[in-house]
Amino acid sequence: MAIKFDVAGIGNALVDVVAHVDDGFLAEQQLAKGTMALVDSNAADFLYAKLPPGVEVSGGSCANTMAAIASLGGKGAYIGKVRDDYFGQVFRHDMNSIGVEFSNEAATDGPPTGRCLVLVSPDAQRTMCTDLGAASTLGVADLKAGLIQTSRVTYMEGYLFDRPEAQRAFIRAAEYAHDSGYKVAISLSDPFCVDRHRDAFRHLVADHIDILFANEDEIMSLYEATVFDDAIQKLHTEGRVDIACLTRSAKGSVIIQSDEVHVIDAEPVQEVVDTTGAGDAYAAGFLYGYTQGLNLGLCGRIAAIAAAEVISHNGARPEQNLAALVAEKLGPLPIKPRD
Amino acid sequence: MAIKFDVAGIGNALVDVVAHVDDGFLAEQQLAKGTMALVDSNAADFLYAKLPPGVEVSGGSCANTMAAIASLGGKGAYIGKVRDDYFGQVFRHDMNSIGVEFSNEAATDGPPTGRCLVLVSPDAQRTMCTDLGAASTLGVADLKAGLIQTSRVTYMEGYLFDRPEAQRAFIRAAEYAHDSGYKVAISLSDPFCVDRHRDAFRHLVADHIDILFANEDEIMSLYEATVFDDAIQKLHTEGRVDIACLTRSAKGSVIIQSDEVHVIDAEPVQEVVDTTGAGDAYAAGFLYGYTQGLNLGLCGRIAAIAAAEVISHNGARPEQNLAALVAEKLGPLPIKPRD
Repeated sequence: MAIKFDVAGIGNALVDVVAHVDDGFLAEQQLAKGTMALVDSNAADFLYAKLPPGVEVSGGSCANTMAAIASLGGKGAYIGKVRDDYFGQVFRHDMNSIGVEFSNEAATDGPPTGRCLVLVSPDAQRTMCTDLGAASTLGVADLKAGLIQTSRVTYMEGYLFDRPEAQRAFIRAAEYAHDSGYKVAISLSDPFCVDRHRDAFRHLVADHIDILFANEDEIMSLYEATVFDDAIQKLHTEGRVDIACLTRSAKGSVIIQSDEVHVIDAEPVQEVVDTTGAGDAYAAGFLYGYTQGLNLGLCGRIAAIAAAEVISHNGARPEQNLAALVAEKLGPLPIKPRD
Repeated sequence: MAIKFDVAGIGNALVDVVAHVDDGFLAEQQLAKGTMALVDSNAADFLYAKLPPGVEVSGGSCANTMAAIASLGGKGAYIGKVRDDYFGQVFRHDMNSIGVEFSNEAATDGPPTGRCLVLVSPDAQRTMCTDLGAASTLGVADLKAGLIQTSRVTYMEGYLFDRPEAQRAFIRAAEYAHDSGYKVAISLSDPFCVDRHRDAFRHLVADHIDILFANEDEIMSLYEATVFDDAIQKLHTEGRVDIACLTRSAKGSVIIQSDEVHVIDAEPVQEVVDTTGAGDAYAAGFLYGYTQGLNLGLCGRIAAIAAAEVISHNGARPEQNLAALVAEKLGPLPIKPRD
């Protein structure tokens, strides 16, 4: 089928409820700072009742990536599950209004739209408790084969791996993409998520993934390495991915394709305000460049610029127009969209 | 009955959906910049679909005032209507979590929780389109007589006057308060709201109100005056209120009680970021001081400090602890709560 999208993203559709707490609060609630924990709706209600007033804003890792791809000028589609409630309406609006196609119908029964309680501590770190809600019902039946079969890359967030039914959907989506001759990408999302599902992730990476995104902690967790370079060597022998993009926060990133290796510096920022969404934006920058047929070095630069924009303000989605920002920093790009 | 609250507030319970637009958008949608228009849910959906991604945050004029009273250390109760949906849950959480009692049960059918589409233009002005939703069902039956009869002041927002049933509730609430020997306050909210209901407002002010809050435009609209001083003279002969607090933006405010007149300077701010909620915070500061038995001059100073805090950042509710801010600026207050 003719190409209609640069990237189709599959993820947990969530609305973030963002509130500020101090370290004592995290300790009292026995929450490990900087991590994402899955909670059921009772636990979420219990925690929410203890939180100060919050702000609600669309979230979800893969959805954040799609927002950044749209800001770069890429054409995206999103696959995920919400309910026919206010948060579902907000999530859909915020996708559609930036031009990302999101056509899964809202569920008319079952759990409400998923939410992520985001607890911001004084040091700007974020601790997340996610009540997946309707997102927990995502399965093979919700895949939009037509979208996947007309997208240059199908991109999925590792958080989906917390449920077997979503894992199955994941693999089916990869088959749809590959059967149509297109690529499949994944972000490992979280070292604890990798820890919970290490074997499944290793099989997936070895058998179904063309482009892998991971940060240091995640790739070291995947291959049970204690040193970054050991993880790289294991990835080389076991991983069988086409391209690996390994992010290292302020140390920049490493992009590996067979013998071609790019070491990309982090883009300087005046002040790191909030690191949430850095990985999501990085993936967006890379995938935008990749689908536009740019060389890997340029893809990495765009990824670094997108990540720098997102960490320089509160919130996980870009505030500036990323296309303009990239044009300002890199000049005209030699765009030649991939077939 | 024994006093339990400083202030009981009655208002439209709303969640704000805040999005940035340019002046061209306002012109296209035929919206008058800086005003509040009531719209039905179809019109709200139609407008929302055209808006860029937004942020959701609890709002409602009187609810903003109650949040500021809580931040000052005052004890408050809120009376309003939401539905059993996400926005209703968010609104309730944001009241309860700051210690404001909000005990009206959520409606289990009827329209969803009210929302206010807040369109922020590049000059930081806000244009609002309100879909009252569940708030449009507030009536006499929803008044919590027990709260009103144990509150030093019952405070209501003028926006309630857009519906006859809410007007009736308004007057009934005033009767509950007065029969218990307590005071009744109102803010006129909006010159256009005054315009729509001028006669009803004049009767209300003459017959039921002890403390009146209005800005220049509102008081001039109420008395159809073209000069501020003319409105003051008319208020004097016709108004019959005990205390009038007239706000004049950067020119400060004038507080009148019979022959006692206070002219209060505006509190200096480094940068006016967003004037929304200035009047709500001013009323909070005054009512906090008044219920704590402070003299009118001090009440005015606290009001000015609260308003200055709110206009120095985005959003209509205070970000700093107002009690600490007031203590820093005015030192220990000679508090002697009113009977």
